[in-house]
Amino acid sequence: MKTIDLNADLGEGFGIWRLGDDDALLDIVTSANLACGFHAGDPLTIRRTCAAAVDRGVRIGAQVSYRDLAGFGRREMEVDPEELSSEVLYQLAAVDGIARAMGGRVSYVKPHGALYNRVCRDAGQAEAVVSAVAAYDRSLPILTLPGSAVHEVAARQGVATVTECFADRAYTPRGTLVPRREPGSVLHDPAEVTARAVTMAVDHTVTASDGSAIPVEARSICVHGDTPGAVGLARRVRDSLTAAGVSLRPFT
Amino acid sequence: MKTIDLNADLGEGFGIWRLGDDDALLDIVTSANLACGFHAGDPLTIRRTCAAAVDRGVRIGAQVSYRDLAGFGRREMEVDPEELSSEVLYQLAAVDGIARAMGGRVSYVKPHGALYNRVCRDAGQAEAVVSAVAAYDRSLPILTLPGSAVHEVAARQGVATVTECFADRAYTPRGTLVPRREPGSVLHDPAEVTARAVTMAVDHTVTASDGSAIPVEARSICVHGDTPGAVGLARRVRDSLTAAGVSLRPFT
Amino acid sequence: MKTIDLNADLGEGFGIWRLGDDDALLDIVTSANLACGFHAGDPLTIRRTCAAAVDRGVRIGAQVSYRDLAGFGRREMEVDPEELSSEVLYQLAAVDGIARAMGGRVSYVKPHGALYNRVCRDAGQAEAVVSAVAAYDRSLPILTLPGSAVHEVAARQGVATVTECFADRAYTPRGTLVPRREPGSVLHDPAEVTARAVTMAVDHTVTASDGSAIPVEARSICVHGDTPGAVGLARRVRDSLTAAGVSLRPFT
Amino acid sequence: MKTIDLNADLGEGFGIWRLGDDDALLDIVTSANLACGFHAGDPLTIRRTCAAAVDRGVRIGAQVSYRDLAGFGRREMEVDPEELSSEVLYQLAAVDGIARAMGGRVSYVKPHGALYNRVCRDAGQAEAVVSAVAAYDRSLPILTLPGSAVHEVAARQGVATVTECFADRAYTPRGTLVPRREPGSVLHDPAEVTARAVTMAVDHTVTASDGSAIPVEARSICVHGDTPGAVGLARRVRDSLTAAGVSLRPFT
Repeated sequence: MKTIDLNADLGEGFGIWRLGDDDALLDIVTSANLACGFHAGDPLTIRRTCAAAVDRGVRIGAQVSYRDLAGFGRREMEVDPEELSSEVLYQLAAVDGIARAMGGRVSYVKPHGALYNRVCRDAGQAEAVVSAVAAYDRSLPILTLPGSAVHEVAARQGVATVTECFADRAYTPRGTLVPRREPGSVLHDPAEVTARAVTMAVDHTVTASDGSAIPVEARSICVHGDTPGAVGLARRVRDSLTAAGVSLRPFT
Repeated sequence: MKTIDLNADLGEGFGIWRLGDDDALLDIVTSANLACGFHAGDPLTIRRTCAAAVDRGVRIGAQVSYRDLAGFGRREMEVDPEELSSEVLYQLAAVDGIARAMGGRVSYVKPHGALYNRVCRDAGQAEAVVSAVAAYDRSLPILTLPGSAVHEVAARQGVATVTECFADRAYTPRGTLVPRREPGSVLHDPAEVTARAVTMAVDHTVTASDGSAIPVEARSICVHGDTPGAVGLARRVRDSLTAAGVSLRPFT
Repeated sequence: MKTIDLNADLGEGFGIWRLGDDDALLDIVTSANLACGFHAGDPLTIRRTCAAAVDRGVRIGAQVSYRDLAGFGRREMEVDPEELSSEVLYQLAAVDGIARAMGGRVSYVKPHGALYNRVCRDAGQAEAVVSAVAAYDRSLPILTLPGSAVHEVAARQGVATVTECFADRAYTPRGTLVPRREPGSVLHDPAEVTARAVTMAVDHTVTASDGSAIPVEARSICVHGDTPGAVGLARRVRDSLTAAGVSLRPFT
Repeated sequence: MKTIDLNADLGEGFGIWRLGDDDALLDIVTSANLACGFHAGDPLTIRRTCAAAVDRGVRIGAQVSYRDLAGFGRREMEVDPEELSSEVLYQLAAVDGIARAMGGRVSYVKPHGALYNRVCRDAGQAEAVVSAVAAYDRSLPILTLPGSAVHEVAARQGVATVTECFADRAYTPRGTLVPRREPGSVLHDPAEVTARAVTMAVDHTVTASDGSAIPVEARSICVHGDTPGAVGLARRVRDSLTAAGVSLRPFT
């Protein structure tokens, strides 16, 4: 039987401010990428989201980020690797400690925003993230893109990596994401998005921007919850997968 | 043989800024109260100070604080207990995780600054701190003043407390500290300070502001490192204790 | 002809996070209390909101706050008066400079959240706020509650004060607000709220919690925009005032 | 008679933390680059430093920065130009307002750290800074390096630029600074540094790394105050210039 994981970003409020519908997403996903306080996520939000995830059997991932509340972690920063590694370790430990106090634990790490993109192509920054994970708990896998620089770095340190795919993003024939600035990079038609999700999970392929079918090696599909209609679309993706006989299961 | 612990605040820089001479203090104290990032203490500083403390066999405590970098955690804040508890849990988990990655661990918790003073008299805020410690690791003692509200609250939750005393502060006949705003509240004569430290450790008494000898129940003496001459005075305290046959030993 | 001002808090997002419907409120109010960056309000949000306010002829007020993004400025903090005064001056200057670059200017100051409540009863903190306003521009009035400690302090320094009232809050027979923690303190019936607004503007009275009519000396009514239905209610208040022949005009 | 300006960074503490000896530097320099709160500089520090600068007749410049307290503004950040421009405007207005309340005013703008380096080579980020200055007060010059991209951008917007030089840095034959990572990039011999300062001010030349004399077009020499011995060296530079008959005068 085919299985796939669904992951989404959660706990991305800060203080009075909220972002996305965490409660709704927790009924859809199998893995929750939890903000750790550096791009979003105050401690009370982290604690409540951990408790809610544990209640529903949703896995918790630490979504570590550059220290940038004002920019939501989406701005690339030239952070010294030793400092970045310490910051990742701090975030990971904080969220894991809260998760454990709520009866769960962090079971994977996913870099957020600009850091996610950076570690795909920059081995030095990838090394900083991987070394923090290795120092904290070598058994925690890192969730990232196929082809990311983080895979090789992680392999050298004995840290596992898991890849994800996106049902609502266009792919190039080489299997990379079409950059967001290009037209057609993000798909909005729910029927198309759900069909792609099913093909990704069942056939491990996706139709690239040139019409060719390319392989998709991914154990998780990333869905979004912070735009209008996003939660509804995520629910349709889940329902379509279930209808196609795919079992939704955490990758950890 | 008499034993006593010496504790001091460490790791209280942030980014480019430094405060106190951590390296010198680590050769003097047996317990290091480590800033956790909310009043001071960036992750790299925390990691380096943890590593240095582990190297020297100095115990690490989590010095949890209100979220107030601009005020160094010295300003009282009306924080909701549930939020405060989550913030304490976040800080404690972050520093413990870093300490473990460096081969050590957090072995006690000491509230910092305004929070230290607040939990002495406010059972609600004390409850918030204690519940965070209990949720994270019920075996961690809380270091505080004799007579603090935190003792009773902690006892109810099965969390231990340890009391400390100050060789450079005047005491009232009732055993409380003379408030800092009153003249003579802080002692500056090294000979007097060291003599008081020895009497505290050997006889468990101190001379109060009215000349009477009052009992001191404390397993640790707090020394300071962030004012001119402070490190030298701390070293003299240590040397005097050793010369008096007192063994310097962590209370944990 | 009767005139009244309507004021509301605006620009209270930060980075990616939004709060309230600023565009809608700018079509309703005559005075916009603009977040200055300490409890909310990043510089780009401030600039855009200033530009939009100038476009519509809405007056801009600097809503100065304690430095507390995580608590949205709603938590009382023990800030040293000299430091508080400098922080108020910094915020006021920053927003006035941006407003001037957009073709407008700050025309009044309104303390936010915990600082608003504090300066009502604490002459020392009120003095800190007033001295900052006096140092920056003595002609700027401070918007506050009737009976606030800030009035006397401001009068001594030659700074004007302007009082506001609340159509959706219950009043005690003495003319103070019924505290939010008490039942019935906030009125939700739109018909009742709009009727009170009209009575406040036309007759300068309001019905207190014991049924008596008490005088209301206020040149502005505060409306809200950050709760569900709030903008709709604010619009009804405006429409009812206009229908009653009251002219909506800034107090500055 | 030859004249030159001496500038240095001041007010770079934050809260409890201090950096450099501001009082000593204010007796040496003619222009003070004041931290504006984004990389350093709390409002009370800004106010006190403004007051001290006004007392001594030292000009005040706004040292605007990326928002990065943890990295002291030394880390490059990919900030959206519209947002960066708003942040620069906010900082400039805040410090100018405080300076005016203290009887002075901001008379120039100097980007700090990573932003200083970035606007030398990136016309888009330079445009963001220049547009903020132009929006606030088109008469304020921007202090920067010769050859910086900011010159052309500023000229197009009618904003003046002023260039500075460094007596303690090695120069390439093309007149650019030898990068800090290269050996010999920073000069430590006081006799050499002071001699270079005099040659820069009197002859408008400096000896480059290949021994050739190259022209130096600069109206200000930048001195430092945040490293051991830096203040003493700055004072020697000032004394040598005076002894050589050079008059120390602000460039504004």
